[in-house]
Amino acid sequence: MAASLRQWLCRQIPNQQIYVLRTAALSVVKRSYKTVQIRKVLREEKLNKSVTIKGWVKAVRWHKELTFLQVCDGSGPEHLQVVMPESVVTRCGDVTFGSCVSVEGTLVESQGKGQKLELLSSAVHVVGGCDPYDFPLKQRTRHPPQYTRDFLHMRPKSNLFGSLLRIRNAASMAVHQYFQKEGCIFIHTPILTSSDCEGACETFKVEPSQAELRAKILPDEGSDYSDDDELSRGPVTDMSNEEKVLGTKEFFNSPTYLTVSGQLHLEVMTGAMNKVYNFGPTFRAENSIGSFHLSEFYMVEAEYAFMERLGDLLTEMENLVKFVYRSVMDSCPEDVHMYHKYIAPASFKDKVEKTMSADFKRITYTEAIDILTNAAANFRYKVFWGCDLKKEHEMYLTAALGEVPVFVTDYPAQIKPFYARRNDDDVTVSAADLLVPGVGELCGSSLREERVDILQAVMEQHGLVNQIPWYLELRQFGTCPHGGFGLGFERLLLGMLGAQSLKDVIPFPRWPGRCRT
Amino acid sequence: MAASLRQWLCRQIPNQQIYVLRTAALSVVKRSYKTVQIRKVLREEKLNKSVTIKGWVKAVRWHKELTFLQVCDGSGPEHLQVVMPESVVTRCGDVTFGSCVSVEGTLVESQGKGQKLELLSSAVHVVGGCDPYDFPLKQRTRHPPQYTRDFLHMRPKSNLFGSLLRIRNAASMAVHQYFQKEGCIFIHTPILTSSDCEGACETFKVEPSQAELRAKILPDEGSDYSDDDELSRGPVTDMSNEEKVLGTKEFFNSPTYLTVSGQLHLEVMTGAMNKVYNFGPTFRAENSIGSFHLSEFYMVEAEYAFMERLGDLLTEMENLVKFVYRSVMDSCPEDVHMYHKYIAPASFKDKVEKTMSADFKRITYTEAIDILTNAAANFRYKVFWGCDLKKEHEMYLTAALGEVPVFVTDYPAQIKPFYARRNDDDVTVSAADLLVPGVGELCGSSLREERVDILQAVMEQHGLVNQIPWYLELRQFGTCPHGGFGLGFERLLLGMLGAQSLKDVIPFPRWPGRCRT
Repeated sequence: MAASLRQWLCRQIPNQQIYVLRTAALSVVKRSYKTVQIRKVLREEKLNKSVTIKGWVKAVRWHKELTFLQVCDGSGPEHLQVVMPESVVTRCGDVTFGSCVSVEGTLVESQGKGQKLELLSSAVHVVGGCDPYDFPLKQRTRHPPQYTRDFLHMRPKSNLFGSLLRIRNAASMAVHQYFQKEGCIFIHTPILTSSDCEGACETFKVEPSQAELRAKILPDEGSDYSDDDELSRGPVTDMSNEEKVLGTKEFFNSPTYLTVSGQLHLEVMTGAMNKVYNFGPTFRAENSIGSFHLSEFYMVEAEYAFMERLGDLLTEMENLVKFVYRSVMDSCPEDVHMYHKYIAPASFKDKVEKTMSADFKRITYTEAIDILTNAAANFRYKVFWGCDLKKEHEMYLTAALGEVPVFVTDYPAQIKPFYARRNDDDVTVSAADLLVPGVGELCGSSLREERVDILQAVMEQHGLVNQIPWYLELRQFGTCPHGGFGLGFERLLLGMLGAQSLKDVIPFPRWPGRCRT
Repeated sequence: MAASLRQWLCRQIPNQQIYVLRTAALSVVKRSYKTVQIRKVLREEKLNKSVTIKGWVKAVRWHKELTFLQVCDGSGPEHLQVVMPESVVTRCGDVTFGSCVSVEGTLVESQGKGQKLELLSSAVHVVGGCDPYDFPLKQRTRHPPQYTRDFLHMRPKSNLFGSLLRIRNAASMAVHQYFQKEGCIFIHTPILTSSDCEGACETFKVEPSQAELRAKILPDEGSDYSDDDELSRGPVTDMSNEEKVLGTKEFFNSPTYLTVSGQLHLEVMTGAMNKVYNFGPTFRAENSIGSFHLSEFYMVEAEYAFMERLGDLLTEMENLVKFVYRSVMDSCPEDVHMYHKYIAPASFKDKVEKTMSADFKRITYTEAIDILTNAAANFRYKVFWGCDLKKEHEMYLTAALGEVPVFVTDYPAQIKPFYARRNDDDVTVSAADLLVPGVGELCGSSLREERVDILQAVMEQHGLVNQIPWYLELRQFGTCPHGGFGLGFERLLLGMLGAQSLKDVIPFPRWPGRCRT
């Protein structure tokens, strides 16, 4: 993993240029903690080398004279086969499926099939035992994803979820690489917010769990009382007049929610920087336990100053999606293969290849409605100009256009958020969704209304001028045309892997009724 | 920015090796949206080249025949000087401080001091005007950080905060680079959790803002009802027996909080993977508005399987801190310089250099108490073996030991969390804090108690066995010695930049009484 990741961290150099790398002159403290990663052992193929490896037993086979272990340490999907002669078996404890072991031995050519190399052990030490009867995972069993969701704290021990964690890591890094090579600045948009971006979304409200903090009147005070954290604790008496008048009893002086999108806060940045992006958790209190919903999920959002054409924004999205797909395929091919082999629908890999190589289709909302009204399909939800597109419509569109991702552009203003930029027809807005085969909506995007008079009128209609006055002010001081998009990270993984539910591509899924571990 | 970031993304190659980079064969859609970044223009120094640049006016100087603008686009700290002959001035609108402009012109050698290159304009277009009287930032004014905190949505337009955003970006990437080169896997630990890691912390409680969702009985159901998101909405009737019996009325079936640390969830991963880390938001509902507290802040946490010695863990922390410092200094030297020149205390840069080059000191808690009890200083809080170290003590220790970072190790068990591993003396635990000059505690760390019997006893004492049974189970199935640390990202920035408050190193600070923008 490490080696390929390193290559891949360094690969995103445009224009086929070759760079010579410098290494920073760092004072690095020598470490005595050195883990020999199994992936490295398998790649280096150093026969006759003595090594000590540590990991978890994925399989045990007892034969007459020899016992075989498959040991994995999460550094990659591969197992190292450990051969235990009888003398070693006698001296070691109870090596079972799931137990944690430390193995000393010599790397030798494998006598069996399936691997070049194996570890002939001279000693096996059971670091942490595992009772195979109580252990919820079983040897040589493909546990269905629905089953392992009930054991989130054991799930990483399954081969499939190990692969997911490596893929998620690779995809996360690819997102950063894409934006960094484009000169975008990474921004931590806030999680706690008093602004509700979309208006329509179900939000979570946040309050201190301690009752006395909920009821206390707190000052809204910019300056610091003290640099000593002990001194600044305890009740604060020095309140500004503003707050004495306000007399609110909320911890933050105003109702506070978990973010549903960092977009408005990213737009703040495009008043001073070319290009920015975020990548963090987002929350929806929707009462849905479907495959495509989570209460907590990750979004990647980008915002571009001086973005004047919707088409240019689509290009940015298309390039990002292709870059992340390609990076993950290149750095974790075996892990992705596992999903395509055991989890995804048939010939899913072809779809993924197509996504990386084909041009994404681009149609207007009006064209989409034409296609849908002329379709032979029997839709559950009626199609008419002005209707919102449901998942059945999204699926139909991507299938009808050749099982490739499709951008639908220029939606009616009334079904898109207030900030979307009005088109000249005054009926549609410069907004686009990216629909992906098997997933539906992956991205939402729009040019943002930068014209202060038009934005003010729309915000007044929505009663937002007093709620987020600062958002309007962004257009009063050095405004510029700009646009951006939001991409659902788990949906991206779903589209790449062919998993069935968002619950299976995030380490600790939360949904209505479930936030256990 | 882009060029140096690219070099620097590729620099973290150990062993002084030189790699030749491949470029992935990507289908990249050609873009018509191309921003010419000012930083690039200034670096390339292409005299007589025609360019169009877009950015914000940082200063206007009117002279008899010529007008000079300083234009900045956030790509770097430098301004491009724009020269406007009278003919251009007459044709363009009201170019004021803060306005957004698009400038066409030719790059020429600068006649003035301070820059090699300037842009002789043929046309200046005011994209977004800015009334200098209403605009809260003023030309040629160093606004104190306390002032700009009241205008978070305008703050990125100040030079200082522009620098902060680039530094934060560089530091964030450096964190990822450090862990990726070490073969660590990035994990998104959950924000919503039913487990309160530290026990003692003030937490935020989370509930749907819609009242009917708070009151509804929801099923805790692993399987999916439908793949169609529309179908799965609305009330769910098909409940399992377990939940009918439970009949809880919480949205998640249990009280749910914002995370105070991802550690316990990272520990889940060390049951299957060598090394993991996270980097995300963390929340504390402390009633403190001091310089060293925020309600929402970022933590970097790492967890290492098979970590058996506390000293080895300290080395990992030391290397991380040095790596991030060095990376930021290398990639944003001018931005950091701005802080050291205008914000930090005198000779702060020397402290930073020392942090990067000196070995961090390592003392035991018992030694620290000795130093403090023998100190001539008059402490506000009394020092005795068993007391918690306050900021005044931390500051004294780093100063007394030569103004370098200091690890304090082996604390009394009763002042450290339940999961810290007991030492053989049965009085202290293998826990360490990293104290940094000017900041105090930057990291907390410990080996984790992996021995199931000892952990169970401690958890019973704390009444945690029923609360987080899954945490104990991690020790029942393939446990291993492991350890990890948490680092406060904003405190790291404070230690590097010499800023006075955490509120000034995060884009949207939240503290009691304040969550406005």
